[in-house]
Amino acid sequence: MTRMQDIADKLGISKGTVSKALNGTSNISEELQKKILETAIEMGYTKKLRRQKDTERRLCILIADTEYKEPHQFAYDIILGFRQMAEPAGYEVDVVSADDSLQKSLSYDAFMLQNQYMGAFVVGFNLGSPWMEDFHSCRIPAVLYDNYVPANPHIAYVGIDSNEGMELAVSHLKQLGHKNIGYLSSTLGSYVMQVRHKAFFQTLRQAGLSADYARARSAYLISECVERYLPKLLDMGVTAILCSHDQLANAAMLQCQQLGCHIPEDISIIGFDDLPFCAYISPPLTTIRQDRLQLGKSAYYALESLLNQIPIGTLLLHAQLIVRNSTGEVKIK
Amino acid sequence: MTRMQDIADKLGISKGTVSKALNGTSNISEELQKKILETAIEMGYTKKLRRQKDTERRLCILIADTEYKEPHQFAYDIILGFRQMAEPAGYEVDVVSADDSLQKSLSYDAFMLQNQYMGAFVVGFNLGSPWMEDFHSCRIPAVLYDNYVPANPHIAYVGIDSNEGMELAVSHLKQLGHKNIGYLSSTLGSYVMQVRHKAFFQTLRQAGLSADYARARSAYLISECVERYLPKLLDMGVTAILCSHDQLANAAMLQCQQLGCHIPEDISIIGFDDLPFCAYISPPLTTIRQDRLQLGKSAYYALESLLNQIPIGTLLLHAQLIVRNSTGEVKIK
Repeated sequence: MTRMQDIADKLGISKGTVSKALNGTSNISEELQKKILETAIEMGYTKKLRRQKDTERRLCILIADTEYKEPHQFAYDIILGFRQMAEPAGYEVDVVSADDSLQKSLSYDAFMLQNQYMGAFVVGFNLGSPWMEDFHSCRIPAVLYDNYVPANPHIAYVGIDSNEGMELAVSHLKQLGHKNIGYLSSTLGSYVMQVRHKAFFQTLRQAGLSADYARARSAYLISECVERYLPKLLDMGVTAILCSHDQLANAAMLQCQQLGCHIPEDISIIGFDDLPFCAYISPPLTTIRQDRLQLGKSAYYALESLLNQIPIGTLLLHAQLIVRNSTGEVKIK
Repeated sequence: MTRMQDIADKLGISKGTVSKALNGTSNISEELQKKILETAIEMGYTKKLRRQKDTERRLCILIADTEYKEPHQFAYDIILGFRQMAEPAGYEVDVVSADDSLQKSLSYDAFMLQNQYMGAFVVGFNLGSPWMEDFHSCRIPAVLYDNYVPANPHIAYVGIDSNEGMELAVSHLKQLGHKNIGYLSSTLGSYVMQVRHKAFFQTLRQAGLSADYARARSAYLISECVERYLPKLLDMGVTAILCSHDQLANAAMLQCQQLGCHIPEDISIIGFDDLPFCAYISPPLTTIRQDRLQLGKSAYYALESLLNQIPIGTLLLHAQLIVRNSTGEVKIK
């Protein structure tokens, strides 16, 4: 295990200077601090749990491209669940906006060391986020929400079982008599969207239903998805549409209504996530629930495990089908 | 929530008689006990955690087709890890041999209720085990080692990440220059063997290597695997063989040596599990480690979560590559 003295010896400086750099004191030059950080990372230096006093135990939630400040927003409960576990256990938790410019300015390990964070819970990163590459070889533990990075024992993946969610949705529609099912998805530039896209076809095949690739469409913008692709699905005769997330399902319902289709008489719609608004729209949305509070708590459990050298790799919660009024029996034509 | 009184009302008997049946007292007729148990299951009766006194909190480890009594055997550490967590937390843990005749004699829920177990950790079941069907709809929590049953919130799956293990093994062989890699596997009648078999081909494709189906062979008996299929793989020019578990890898090494092949000069062999013997055979076996003690502890965490209505579905630990002397650089022919 690398100690501060080892770093000092390698650079020919005092241990005190190394300590200053690693503890973020500002009275050394930026250049020297950078050199010390880089050397520390190269030598595999990490802060160890047992060495920290309570006042020094700091974790961060790194968040990008996700709304979390209001109770109705996606990541609010995820963050709440994490804090509800971490803070009583004696950790200080910072929520840090990790935009691309921060990620490009220094490596993940360097950021964590510089800010004295022992571990991170990472929310909202997509496959193109600069630090996703770092997570393949980083030394400081990180738990990734909805992102999977194999073969690094310092990384864990937490989410719900998207395959199970898709299976619940398709099985519900099949029971209602639907055979022609379409899928609308957000861009496939994120891990979880790729998983759900693949799960859609796999589940249809397992259910003995037609799994035509033309029936699944994705786009970065919700407007493009519903204005351009939804009419195409209707033209193909689909009687039900699964959506990769609730906002998209809501937009799809509005678009259907504008096109004169009644829900669920003419077309059934299913969302994914069960955001608070789903119960209040018209008609209330059938969707796949992610228990976001428990996801946050599970993320803390995974991070605490990694900090204690327990090699958790993947922790998935059960998905749950919430049946409301946006799905109904297929109309016999 | 169903109470004993509800069951009594439905059957027109006293609550005391129901209590006797559910608490295993023997002074009621076998026929009546069976009727009460069946009604209790039909009505969704389960023992709740918060109702139990410490002396009444009982869990079981249901084990089939797996050796566990000696420290060198596969499931010893798994069971030890589970007990190391469960017993200090106040649970009594029974290890129960769950052979097919027990499983055929009554349903899983009935067995659990009759014996007053609040939850089970299930080890060594294959896809044909009678209770595997029950796990799709059972009410009493069960954590399955190496078996996945979706869409039942009372079931969780614990194991290591076999995809990651396969990736580590193939990547190691690729770095040593191997391009023609074969796979020998136990029968594909178990979930985890199916996962590893599929992962083998997927990993080869991702690594840009030929993924010829003829290079993967499986058989129920180790002897059939190594006597019949290993020579076929050698004839096809493979320079390395992955094995689905360590005992098979050990038998494959002995067979290679009998055929005059040197390990690792002529052929590299990799196992799976890292059983204690792997370090002591000749040559010591390169293998993928399952941290079995932590797997047992994680299984307890998952079961405790299910008992507390936290819907854990899947918990996978990281696989780890242990490099010993049964793998080496490919010989240039």
